[in-house]
Amino acid sequence: MPAKYVYRFGHGATEGRKEMKALLGGKGANLAEMSNIGLPVPPGFTITTEACQHYIRQSHAWPEGLREQVQTGLEHVEQALGRTLGDPDRPLLVSVRSGAAQSMPGMMDTVLNLGLNDTVVEGLARETGNIRFAYDAYRRFIDMFSDVVMGVHHEYFEEALDRMKKRKGVTEDLELDAEDLKELVAEFKAIYQSKIGDPFPTDPQLQLRLSINAVFGSWDSARAAKYRQINRITGLLGTAVNVQAMVYGNLGETSGTGVCFTRNPSTGEHELYGEYLVNAQGEDVVAGIRTPRPIIEMANEFLEPYQQLLEMTTALEKHYQDMQDIEFTIQEETLYILQTRSGKRTGRAALRIAVDMVGEGLTSREKAVKYLVEPRHLDQLLHPGFKDEAAYQDRVLAKGLPASPGAAVGQVVFTADDAEQWARAGKQVMLVRTETSPEDVGGMDAAEGILTSRGGMTSHAAVVARGWGKPCVAGCGAVVIDYATRSFAVDGTTVTEGDWISINGSSGEVIIGQEELVPVTMRENFATFMAWTDEFRPIGVRTNADTPEDATKAVEFGAEGIGLCRTEHMFFEGDRIQAVREMILADSEAARQSALAKLLPFQKEDFKGIFTAMSGMPITIRLLDPPLHEFLPHDAQGEQDMADRMGVPLADVQAKVAELHEFNPMLGHRGCRLGVTYPEITAMQARAIIEAALECKSEGIDAVPEIMVPLIGTVNEFVNQKAIIHETADQVFAEKDDRIDYLVGTMIEVPRAALTADEVAREAEFFSFGTNDLTQMCFGYSRDDAGKFLPDYVDHKILRDDPFQVLDRQGVGQLVRMGTELGRESNPELKVGICGEHGGEPSSVAFCYQVGMDYVSCSPFRVPIARLAAAQAHLASP
Amino acid sequence: MPAKYVYRFGHGATEGRKEMKALLGGKGANLAEMSNIGLPVPPGFTITTEACQHYIRQSHAWPEGLREQVQTGLEHVEQALGRTLGDPDRPLLVSVRSGAAQSMPGMMDTVLNLGLNDTVVEGLARETGNIRFAYDAYRRFIDMFSDVVMGVHHEYFEEALDRMKKRKGVTEDLELDAEDLKELVAEFKAIYQSKIGDPFPTDPQLQLRLSINAVFGSWDSARAAKYRQINRITGLLGTAVNVQAMVYGNLGETSGTGVCFTRNPSTGEHELYGEYLVNAQGEDVVAGIRTPRPIIEMANEFLEPYQQLLEMTTALEKHYQDMQDIEFTIQEETLYILQTRSGKRTGRAALRIAVDMVGEGLTSREKAVKYLVEPRHLDQLLHPGFKDEAAYQDRVLAKGLPASPGAAVGQVVFTADDAEQWARAGKQVMLVRTETSPEDVGGMDAAEGILTSRGGMTSHAAVVARGWGKPCVAGCGAVVIDYATRSFAVDGTTVTEGDWISINGSSGEVIIGQEELVPVTMRENFATFMAWTDEFRPIGVRTNADTPEDATKAVEFGAEGIGLCRTEHMFFEGDRIQAVREMILADSEAARQSALAKLLPFQKEDFKGIFTAMSGMPITIRLLDPPLHEFLPHDAQGEQDMADRMGVPLADVQAKVAELHEFNPMLGHRGCRLGVTYPEITAMQARAIIEAALECKSEGIDAVPEIMVPLIGTVNEFVNQKAIIHETADQVFAEKDDRIDYLVGTMIEVPRAALTADEVAREAEFFSFGTNDLTQMCFGYSRDDAGKFLPDYVDHKILRDDPFQVLDRQGVGQLVRMGTELGRESNPELKVGICGEHGGEPSSVAFCYQVGMDYVSCSPFRVPIARLAAAQAHLASP
Repeated sequence: MPAKYVYRFGHGATEGRKEMKALLGGKGANLAEMSNIGLPVPPGFTITTEACQHYIRQSHAWPEGLREQVQTGLEHVEQALGRTLGDPDRPLLVSVRSGAAQSMPGMMDTVLNLGLNDTVVEGLARETGNIRFAYDAYRRFIDMFSDVVMGVHHEYFEEALDRMKKRKGVTEDLELDAEDLKELVAEFKAIYQSKIGDPFPTDPQLQLRLSINAVFGSWDSARAAKYRQINRITGLLGTAVNVQAMVYGNLGETSGTGVCFTRNPSTGEHELYGEYLVNAQGEDVVAGIRTPRPIIEMANEFLEPYQQLLEMTTALEKHYQDMQDIEFTIQEETLYILQTRSGKRTGRAALRIAVDMVGEGLTSREKAVKYLVEPRHLDQLLHPGFKDEAAYQDRVLAKGLPASPGAAVGQVVFTADDAEQWARAGKQVMLVRTETSPEDVGGMDAAEGILTSRGGMTSHAAVVARGWGKPCVAGCGAVVIDYATRSFAVDGTTVTEGDWISINGSSGEVIIGQEELVPVTMRENFATFMAWTDEFRPIGVRTNADTPEDATKAVEFGAEGIGLCRTEHMFFEGDRIQAVREMILADSEAARQSALAKLLPFQKEDFKGIFTAMSGMPITIRLLDPPLHEFLPHDAQGEQDMADRMGVPLADVQAKVAELHEFNPMLGHRGCRLGVTYPEITAMQARAIIEAALECKSEGIDAVPEIMVPLIGTVNEFVNQKAIIHETADQVFAEKDDRIDYLVGTMIEVPRAALTADEVAREAEFFSFGTNDLTQMCFGYSRDDAGKFLPDYVDHKILRDDPFQVLDRQGVGQLVRMGTELGRESNPELKVGICGEHGGEPSSVAFCYQVGMDYVSCSPFRVPIARLAAAQAHLASP
Repeated sequence: MPAKYVYRFGHGATEGRKEMKALLGGKGANLAEMSNIGLPVPPGFTITTEACQHYIRQSHAWPEGLREQVQTGLEHVEQALGRTLGDPDRPLLVSVRSGAAQSMPGMMDTVLNLGLNDTVVEGLARETGNIRFAYDAYRRFIDMFSDVVMGVHHEYFEEALDRMKKRKGVTEDLELDAEDLKELVAEFKAIYQSKIGDPFPTDPQLQLRLSINAVFGSWDSARAAKYRQINRITGLLGTAVNVQAMVYGNLGETSGTGVCFTRNPSTGEHELYGEYLVNAQGEDVVAGIRTPRPIIEMANEFLEPYQQLLEMTTALEKHYQDMQDIEFTIQEETLYILQTRSGKRTGRAALRIAVDMVGEGLTSREKAVKYLVEPRHLDQLLHPGFKDEAAYQDRVLAKGLPASPGAAVGQVVFTADDAEQWARAGKQVMLVRTETSPEDVGGMDAAEGILTSRGGMTSHAAVVARGWGKPCVAGCGAVVIDYATRSFAVDGTTVTEGDWISINGSSGEVIIGQEELVPVTMRENFATFMAWTDEFRPIGVRTNADTPEDATKAVEFGAEGIGLCRTEHMFFEGDRIQAVREMILADSEAARQSALAKLLPFQKEDFKGIFTAMSGMPITIRLLDPPLHEFLPHDAQGEQDMADRMGVPLADVQAKVAELHEFNPMLGHRGCRLGVTYPEITAMQARAIIEAALECKSEGIDAVPEIMVPLIGTVNEFVNQKAIIHETADQVFAEKDDRIDYLVGTMIEVPRAALTADEVAREAEFFSFGTNDLTQMCFGYSRDDAGKFLPDYVDHKILRDDPFQVLDRQGVGQLVRMGTELGRESNPELKVGICGEHGGEPSSVAFCYQVGMDYVSCSPFRVPIARLAAAQAHLASP
């Protein structure tokens, strides 16, 4: 008996299972799963990846039995719908799609409406009573089949369409009538024949076989092979082929189409949420050409399908353990589910859904943490709202759909390019468009918010903006845009490019002028959910904070210590800069000492403030890091002022500025290199830390300092600095006749430190990876200068991400892993953390967890994100 | 029977062998060897490391039998000399020294003159007829024994000596007479008693036992243990103890002492060379108080010892296969050899000795290459030196980095223009600058030497000067230049334009005045010897050369190709800079293309020149590397000139300068990053290379270009640039209907490239390690700025060497090794070389050989050094 190559799905005859991804591909397995849980998916069948492998290996021959099995699969579909492929009276049309076990660009696209020919199209026209629809479907099919299956470039058909529109004096496809489309079909068939040599195939069975072959063959296309090679995808048999009945929501008033969510994706409220259109196709909803109706109204027009939908939602949520986004079509009063998937949602909704679903017993805390809230959702929650929503009511210009929550203020621009340019020039902009398309995403990203005059809650603008947590008001029909004059009008009020407006994405309001923004307050769900994340988080989260205020805020957000307290800012404040400059101008150690003595009390007070704010929690204090020239004036006026104030000759100041000038300050006389040449600076800082800790102790505050030496490249530098710190601490202990515990460790931010981490760890008590500098040196990119080429690099796909945002695992990450492993080898007690910007970036946090760090540290506002990312990394690990 | 713990040596009764280092220590094995080859060494015995181990492990108990064996050893010495320890009539005095298998600071120092007490000293005085000598030996013994054996600090004795000199109103030890020293001996004994509690031990046997114990115990001292830990010395049993008869050259007119070489260490001539003093100790020769006589005169005073010496030299050279430096003493007409070792020599002598000794059949070519010439010897030969380095020491004004070896003398000028003008006027000039830039190359070329106050070993001045073999002292921070007054100051001394100074680029010294130079003369021996090195050299040596002249010179020195041909200098010459600036100012790709088109013919001619000079040899050409702002003027006047010459508004020039400014140019928009953003630059250079190669081919010249992409950090950058190069080459091949072979590879100079070398090597045909930049990024040191702290680092022993001079094996070397191994794993055909400055530094060359590189590349003047170093590395490998 031949092998089983065809698996049916839908209409109670599903043969596959979701576990059969290797055999049925991702799409096929998913269609089987939807069928198995009882969803009315349009019936169809999946041809296995084994069949594909046979086809590729056996010179494009179908394996024995495949032809018969395809026929059986087709009959299943025909019986289910009471329609037949090629039958003009009750025609069955099908789609053919590829689908491997992994998503793979470069393989064949979809063919829709397969089964049409000159006879069938007439039948379709008769059945639907819509000649234009039938011929539109036909010309689309010829175009797709020719392009995708036969390799006749889509351009030829596009050109013919354009010529036709020109002839008819119209600009939109929709303005072509049925006769025009008939004419176009003839022309399309002529193009096909001229390119292929044969007439367009009229036999639907042949259309189907050729399409299946094309899918099989596309597995081996150069593009697909290249993609697999680049992405190192191996071990797959081939692609599966999904053949599925076409269903139409535009077969008259008993048909329709819609999209709905099982919960409100903006607020998370437990209600069926969505919209639908009668006598329409799915693309009509997305295109935003007709304004859809709220889903609740379906009860009036399509009672049975509506009740079916309602019943499904709970089952679906129980099955998928998540809020679902469902695409459906009603064909002649029969409900079909085209797709269900986890629905996109706002941060606020994500938190509420997670907490509610756990409360409703639909999922567990673990799964809620693992799946239901993304780190970026938390980020959204920290976005601002308006300070006083009541106050601006008389300036509300119009009201659209509350498409993506949050408040935004910006100067109006009308194109995505302008948005990007203005933003680069440092302006805050608001992008105003009739609607948006994928081409506009750059400008959408650059804008503070987005306002569209057309489109619904699931229009492009709305979906994209919600995904980003960027405020958006969509479908605001009152706004009439005139791109030519770069202005829009609302009831006689004109707003011109550059004018300020504010939008409230939570209410849909558009307001003239600049409203004041305030950060969103944390809600109760936030605290509940964040507490759950901590149950599954095996790695600490600290914060980077230099002041008691930042430290306090971070503790509110859940920080468990300070991973990076920079001390240099303390050198800039108020009169301290005078003492710092005195120290820099000093020409002897004694003079430097005396200037440093003036700084000591300030530093001590700073440390006391932070110790107090963080009592009992560890605080990693980094010794002075920047090159000394950063503390000198940067222009002639500044030099003169400094000379005047300090009572020294201008020439002395100028000479010192010249002496300290560096070609590459990033790689210059900074970090521990300062401490080596000026040991008295290290000593002063160590004294300030230890004295502050002792004074705190006497006040009952538990100071836990971890003194960190920056920019170590060799163990000897560390030994040198550690000796000064210990010596100073011992002196202070003796003077005060008291002591405290403290650690001495180092930043690992120079590649050589990571490469020799075994040696460094023999001396250091902790490592903190400074991945900003490590990235700079590992790539050889100056962060201050890389803006000139990094965007090009990301655009040209030379880099997948900006390595200053997402930790580069392959290069920088290799150093981090090596440094951690070598360090722990020679010092199993070594405490390891990260304090670069990456400490708050979710995928980088996951990497830090995988590497085995003890904690990550990030800016206060990213602490919740790091907590969630760390828990998710842990839950995702095998 | 107890184990054998004592091995005698000398006087025909030697028991040890040179192979017994583990048991006898290095010193003991060496004494045994000298005895075995028949040298009259003062007799003695060695106590084994096993005895030491027993002592340490068994609570300081001597192993069974040791006491008896020491006694037997002592008797051997007594019989050999006819003297007895403690006998006032014929006293035997001995030295006691430690000596482990590896030299180890921190262990016990030497005790000399052991065996003296109040009675014996009188006997010694009688025998020598020299009371002062006897008491001087006695007071030294008490001091040494107390300090080294008993731990009474040397300072106490030094203070007593100082008090004595003060009392006597003298300043030199030698001014104290016998009575003074007698008094001092009494005082020394009192010090001993007050510190130890017991009187100074008078029993010579006790003195000996205590000294042996002290040596044993010093093995376990904290200092020695720390040294072993730091240097990871393990597996040694302990230290041996060497007890040896003291012999004296100052026992009257039948005694004497001297030093001789078996060949002339200045010229290499085969003659006994040295000097001696009658009735003197070795230290008198070294101290230079009495003028020694030439060795030849010994024939008159000490005929038999002289003949003995003469006979020994040939035997010694045959045994050691090297010229020997011999210390000897004649005690009462008996010759004793105290030490023989390989003698230090000049470069000229080294070459002559190597070639002569092979010719005389005393050694093999292999051993001559392996042992007889050091790389620094060749360095000496290739550069002029000062006639008398000792003579100018009091005129040394300052010391900077020895950036390019050789000596130079000239009149100080402060600008490159002046250097050129003065040189044209026939003057010898020394160019003194804060730092140099590519604009200064004309003046640098015109100058005899270059002195800069900033910049390191790989600063512009250093690199260019080394390439030319021109002396340079760089980063001489003590030199404070005032361009306004055309002078520089060092600690109050002012040197004005036109003053003469001399610089020593091998030592870094800056000297006031005109020192006399000795010129370079290549001798025949050089060619003979260098040809031998090639027999044992398994790795190629190429040169870094940018011009046909440099290339030709390097080929004369034995270069087998060009490992680094920089293309940017070609952008500076003559009118080309105009076209370059036009390109930089261009605001469209078309405008850039048209400027590049002007550069193309120049580049092509440059390449043709180099291909011609190196016909048949591979030439690695690096594409444009520096950031574009290096080609723009650096001051207001230059900007105005540029604007005038190019007929553009000054504001445009200023705007471009501002736009291109970088905070850290080293990590900025340079290398392949330029090629990615301006692909047309890469295309122009590729075209110039390929067209030049084709034109050469048509003229019968064999061009072998290897096109090198700089500053790769990701494989994608390389793929991007490689595509442009191949595309351009294919175009040119099509245009000219001819083709040549060429390679496309990359510099590995960014840490990330080394870390991901497996990926890069899948695409690249060769790697060339750019260890200058790799060192900068691995350490995070800007070579232009590191001068501010690197000297401190080397002084404080934080770094053993300047990593820009000697490749840092642990950090940078780890990346080089990793890069090579990963690269070869994924591309076994990968050609690997080095083109950083380290390619000409001997220990770094050895490392490159060990790593398995195919070749090293260095500046022309270092090619012979690299050839020798590579051969030696190969011969040294197991």
